This record gives sequence, structure tokens and C-alpha cells, in this order.
Amino acid sequence: MNLLPRIKPVYAHCDLPCGVYDPAQARIEAESLLGIMNKYESLDEHNKLRAVIIKEERAELVKHHLWVLWTDYFNPEHLEKYPDLHDKFWKATKQAGECKHHLEPQEAEKLLTMIDEIAIIFWATKKA
Amino acid sequence: MNLLPRIKPVYAHCDLPCGVYDPAQARIEAESLLGIMNKYESLDEHNKLRAVIIKEERAELVKHHLWVLWTDYFNPEHLEKYPDLHDKFWKATKQAGECKHHLEPQEAEKLLTMIDEIAIIFWATKKA
Amino acid sequence: MNLLPRIKPVYAHCDLPCGVYDPAQARIEAESLLGIMNKYESLDEHNKLRAVIIKEERAELVKHHLWVLWTDYFNPEHLEKYPDLHDKFWKATKQAGECKHHLEPQEAEKLLTMIDEIAIIFWATKKA
Amino acid sequence: MNLLPRIKPVYAHCDLPCGVYDPAQARIEAESLLGIMNKYESLDEHNKLRAVIIKEERAELVKHHLWVLWTDYFNPEHLEKYPDLHDKFWKATKQAGECKHHLEPQEAEKLLTMIDEIAIIFWATKKA
Amino acid sequence: MNLLPRIKPVYAHCDLPCGVYDPAQARIEAESLLGIMNKYESLDEHNKLRAVIIKEERAELVKHHLWVLWTDYFNPEHLEKYPDLHDKFWKATKQAGECKHHLEPQEAEKLLTMIDEIAIIFWATKKA
Amino acid sequence: MNLLPRIKPVYAHCDLPCGVYDPAQARIEAESLLGIMNKYESLDEHNKLRAVIIKEERAELVKHHLWVLWTDYFNPEHLEKYPDLHDKFWKATKQAGECKHHLEPQEAEKLLTMIDEIAIIFWATKKA
Repeated sequence: MNLLPRIKPVYAHCDLPCGVYDPAQARIEAESLLGIMNKYESLDEHNKLRAVIIKEERAELVKHHLWVLWTDYFNPEHLEKYPDLHDKFWKATKQAGECKHHLEPQEAEKLLTMIDEIAIIFWATKKA
Repeated sequence: MNLLPRIKPVYAHCDLPCGVYDPAQARIEAESLLGIMNKYESLDEHNKLRAVIIKEERAELVKHHLWVLWTDYFNPEHLEKYPDLHDKFWKATKQAGECKHHLEPQEAEKLLTMIDEIAIIFWATKKA
Repeated sequence: MNLLPRIKPVYAHCDLPCGVYDPAQARIEAESLLGIMNKYESLDEHNKLRAVIIKEERAELVKHHLWVLWTDYFNPEHLEKYPDLHDKFWKATKQAGECKHHLEPQEAEKLLTMIDEIAIIFWATKKA
Repeated sequence: MNLLPRIKPVYAHCDLPCGVYDPAQARIEAESLLGIMNKYESLDEHNKLRAVIIKEERAELVKHHLWVLWTDYFNPEHLEKYPDLHDKFWKATKQAGECKHHLEPQEAEKLLTMIDEIAIIFWATKKA
Repeated sequence: MNLLPRIKPVYAHCDLPCGVYDPAQARIEAESLLGIMNKYESLDEHNKLRAVIIKEERAELVKHHLWVLWTDYFNPEHLEKYPDLHDKFWKATKQAGECKHHLEPQEAEKLLTMIDEIAIIFWATKKA
Repeated sequence: MNLLPRIKPVYAHCDLPCGVYDPAQARIEAESLLGIMNKYESLDEHNKLRAVIIKEERAELVKHHLWVLWTDYFNPEHLEKYPDLHDKFWKATKQAGECKHHLEPQEAEKLLTMIDEIAIIFWATKKA
């Protein structure tokens, strides 16, 4: 008897684990990048170092949340309707990488705009 | 000359890294718990196992986001105004632990209600 | 037949995974913070940077170990007997955050004292 | 005097940290997926559970290594020369997700083929 | 002017970050393994699954803490005095791996004995 | 009925999860260390800080991949044939630690040589 059988699931697998996705996860981390950049100049040397360490982590989290959204949520039908979807994600994750290299708030603002464009598409597909 | 001096910061440290907090981070993970529990019964055995693994991670993330909010965002003035703040966080993080032990959707729903109560306090302090 | 049934456990869930908690986990990381701060001034610039990176991680680990102890180990009966338990954990985790912002050894010493106060309560509840 | 100034770097930022990328990182994890699937049936129940846990992690690592390669290594010139690059990465990371849902070795073999197609493009761009 | 110069440190590098090591870190995780194994039979199916997931993590943490101790704390003089040091660490980390494969408490007890033997050597070198 | 029985596996446990090991994992991270060190001098201050942060992570990954290879792949028969195996791994992981403390490329080159010596032994045991 095989207690944990190797069954090919008949259920739509993209429904597991939960169907819960939200571009807010990437946005919150990107807002954090903007906050760090806005405060950077006013910090003492010790906290400037810390700001760079934390900025590195936050930018990586933006990338991660965007990658998950791109691979796990969006499907071929979405792509057909939004043919620049791949490019939007590629450029947004590249911009998150830019935020690692820069301290100018406009870099984080640019990232936020790119995430918002993705969010608009996301919510349009959810309502569809 | 000391390039990275050991200066006592005169800046309010809670202003670093970014001042960005959002109870939505905990809520999204808790919604994921609810999604997993709602689908659990309809999954094949292999994906049931996976659901338990993922549920464990999501519940831990709920705890983490709540702990950060409690320790890093809230301050003594908030506590004076909301004296049951500690207890609300303690019970909500304990409830996230309950969701590790259970598969009944009402456990995740109870957690969501507790997070929402915290979110109401959070947003009230932001507007104040 | 339901191989992995959705049973409400009759066992006290706080007994899983293992019942093993030890404030020493937080203390060892806090000792590490003190060690870093004590050596900071004698380090060259490259290792000063590294010290800040490592200090950030250790302080986060102190927080994590304290949070787990607070949420997972302590129960309502403990709280009734030690009504300032919430406040002790809140202040200790906030002090771990202070150690991220500071390089003065007395900040880590203050943290160690706070952890020791929690440890005394912990061991008293274990013997009870 | 500003010790850690907010300078716009004149150096090509894609040159940091190191210029070292290798599709072998994704491939090794995918081989691990195949190894797990090939042995799954011969394992006892306890190790079957463990296999599912480990498979989940390995598949996530495949995704991560592919995402990094896509965002950090490839640039607009590469994309112009290989216009299906986005699609190849999207489908390969989706297939890594499939390997979480399945236990049939052919799913990992399919993933390996997709990684190899990406590796061919990668090495062609390195020689160019 | 080179603010962050590439100086060869004249300080004993093993003194950074902190000089704080403690075999208690590995021991606490191993006690957790024993706790899980002792309770395993009395758990319902859902928590049995959880126990395997948690056991996997705890065993990995034992390995990690032992590896750090072996590489970072012990030095050539220690090795000369305790020539079986390498073998003791190798066998202890392998035994932590065994605990991933097994559910019998004696496997965790064997691991605890091996950690204690290492701890005796550790404390002897600290006093020397 | 015991659905997830506590069976002593009769299968060689070292065959799980997958039998896939490859010293390339450690080598790629060490190449990254070399890349970082080679570029360090040409970076602006902000990216110099980032380089130290990333170097710290890469060196830790080298250690991790070597530790896993040492504990999980190599067995007593290998050790009998290559009696200096323990020492080679100890010194290589210590050298990875050195790369955290240094910025001179020769430190990473020394590490690469040590990894290559291990790789030669590894591949000899695979062919045997």
C-alpha cells in the first residue's frame, strides 16, 4: 500500500498554495528604499553605513517579490493581453538593482512608478 | 583621523531605516494561510504535504512582520494611548502559531481579525 | 479514505515541536554584540565596516530569539504571575535595536542586563 | 567634509559585484530535483516526506538562480539578439514551479533541457 | 585620498567579530531534536508532518553551529593538542544528518553525547 | 493504524536526497570573491561599501558549500584513501574566512587553488 502516492494532480496547480498575490509587497519594500534615500544625507557616518546595508536587503526583496509575481501569478493568457509584461518586469527588477548602486531618491521614485504600472495590470487581470 | 567615528547619533534613530511600516505585510501572509486552508481538502496527497510546508512558512512570516511592527514602530506614547497593545500583539502572534497546528479556515480568519484590529490602531497613530 | 486528516489535535500544541527554549540563545548573540563593540576602535577601516555588518545581524538574532521566547514559550499563567513580562520583552527587543544604532559597549551591557532579567523569570517558571 | 558621498558612479554598475554568473548554479539544483524524483519510489515513508521538503527548496533555488541570471546578467543588446530570452526564462522558472507539484522525473528532465537552452545562449554571449 | 584603504590588518583576525563562541548553540538545537523525537508518536498526523519539517531545520542548525565552531574558533595549536578534533566534528555533523533520517530518540541522544565531547575540548581550550 | 510509521530505513541514507554534489558551487562563489577584489580599487565609495557587504555573503556561501561537501558527500572509505581530507577542508574554509578580512585578490586566488585541490579528490572518488 502506497500511503503517499505519486498521483498526477487533476487540480489546477497554480491554485496552490493559495492564490494570494499582491504587488503591495514589492511596493512597501520600494517605499522603504525611498525612505532610506531621503534620509541618507541627514544620517551620521555609522547610520550611513547601516543605511547602505539595509538598502541592499530591501532592493533584493523588491526583486524577489516581483520575480514571484511574474513567474507564479501571470499566465499565458495575461501575456497575450499584455505583451510587454516580460519587459516591464525585467526593467523593474533591473531598476531595483539600480537602487542598490545609487543613493538619489529619484531612482527609488522611478522604481515605484514601474511597480505601479505592473500593479495596474495585475488588478486589471484580477477583475477580468 | 577617524573616518568612521563612534558618534552618538543626535537624530531620532527610529527614523532609520525608512519609517515605512505597513500591517499589510502581515495581512497578505495571513490571507495566504486562509487560502491554503480553504483549498487543503481538495488537494491530492502530494500537494497536501506541500500545503503543510508552505503553511508553516507563511505563519512564520506573519509572526515576523507583527514582531517587527510591535518592536520597531510602536513607541511609549502609542502604548500609553493603547494600553492593550502588547496583549494584542502577543495574542495575534500566538494565533499565527495556532495556524501552524491547524487546518481549519476559521483559525486563519481569527488571525485576520486580530491583524485588522492592530491595523486600525496603526493607522490611527499614523494620522495622529 | 483520508490519509492526512484534518483532525483538531487533542494534545497541548505548545508541546510541539519540542518544549526546548533557552534564553542563552539570545544571550550568546548579545555577548557577540558586546565583543564587537569592545573591539571596534582597534579595528582597521575594512574590519570596522565588517563589524557594522555583523553587528546588524547579531542584533537581529537577539530580537528573533527574544520574540520566539515571548510568543511561543510564555503563557497566560506566566503573564498573570509576571505582569510586566510584555514590557520587559518590548524594551529588551527595542534595546537590541539600539545596539544597531550604537557602538558604545554600554548599550550591549544594558541589553545583557535586560536579557538576564528575562532569564531569571524564565528559569523560575521552569522550576515552578 | 562628506566621507561617504552620494556620487553618481561613472563605472558600469553591472561590473559590480563581480561579473561572475554561471548557469551551472541553476543546473546543479535541477539535477538534484531529478535525483530526488528518481529515488522517490524506493524511499520509506519518513524519507518520502523529507524528499518533498527538500524538493520544494531545490526548486526554489533553481528559480532564484535563473531570476538572477535573467535580471542581472542579460542586457538589452543580448535581448535584441535573442528576442525569446524573456520567454525562455519565464517558462523555465514556471517549469521549476511544476517540479514542486510533481514527482515524475520527466518534469525535472524537461527543466534541465530548458536550463541547457538558456546556458547555450549565455555562453554564446560570453564569447561574443 | 583613499577613505576605505586596502590595508592588511595587523590585528589577529580571529578576534573579529567578537571572540564569542559557545557549543551551547549546537546543543540547544540538538535537545530540540530529542524533544521532537520523544513526542513524535503521540502527535496526530498533521503535527507528525510538522515535526518532520521542524526536525529537518533543527538538524541543519546543529550542523551549522558545529561547522562555525570547527572552522572559526579552533586553531592549529588546538588541533595539535587534540588531534582527533577534525574527526569528532565530522562524525558529529554526520550524526546531525542521521537525525534527519531517523525518528528514534537514541539518534539525538548519540548526537548530544558527541556535542558534549566537543564542548569539553572547547572549554578546556578556553581555560588554557 | 500508523500512517507515517517510524521505520528504520533499509536504504543507504546517503542516497537521499539526490546524490548530487558539485565543488563548482563553492568555486563559483570564490570566483565572485576574486571578481570583487579585482574591481574594488576602481569603485566609488558607495560601491566599495557594497562590495564589502557582498564579499561577506559570498565568502559565507563558499564555506557553506564546502562544509556540505565535507559532511554529506565524503565517507570513511574516501577518508582512508585521502587522509588529509579533513585538513584540506578545514584550511579551505578558514581561507574563505580570510577573504572576509582581506581585499587583496591573492587571498581569493589562494582559496580557488584550495577548492581545486578538493575538486580533484572529489572527481577521483566519483570515477572510482
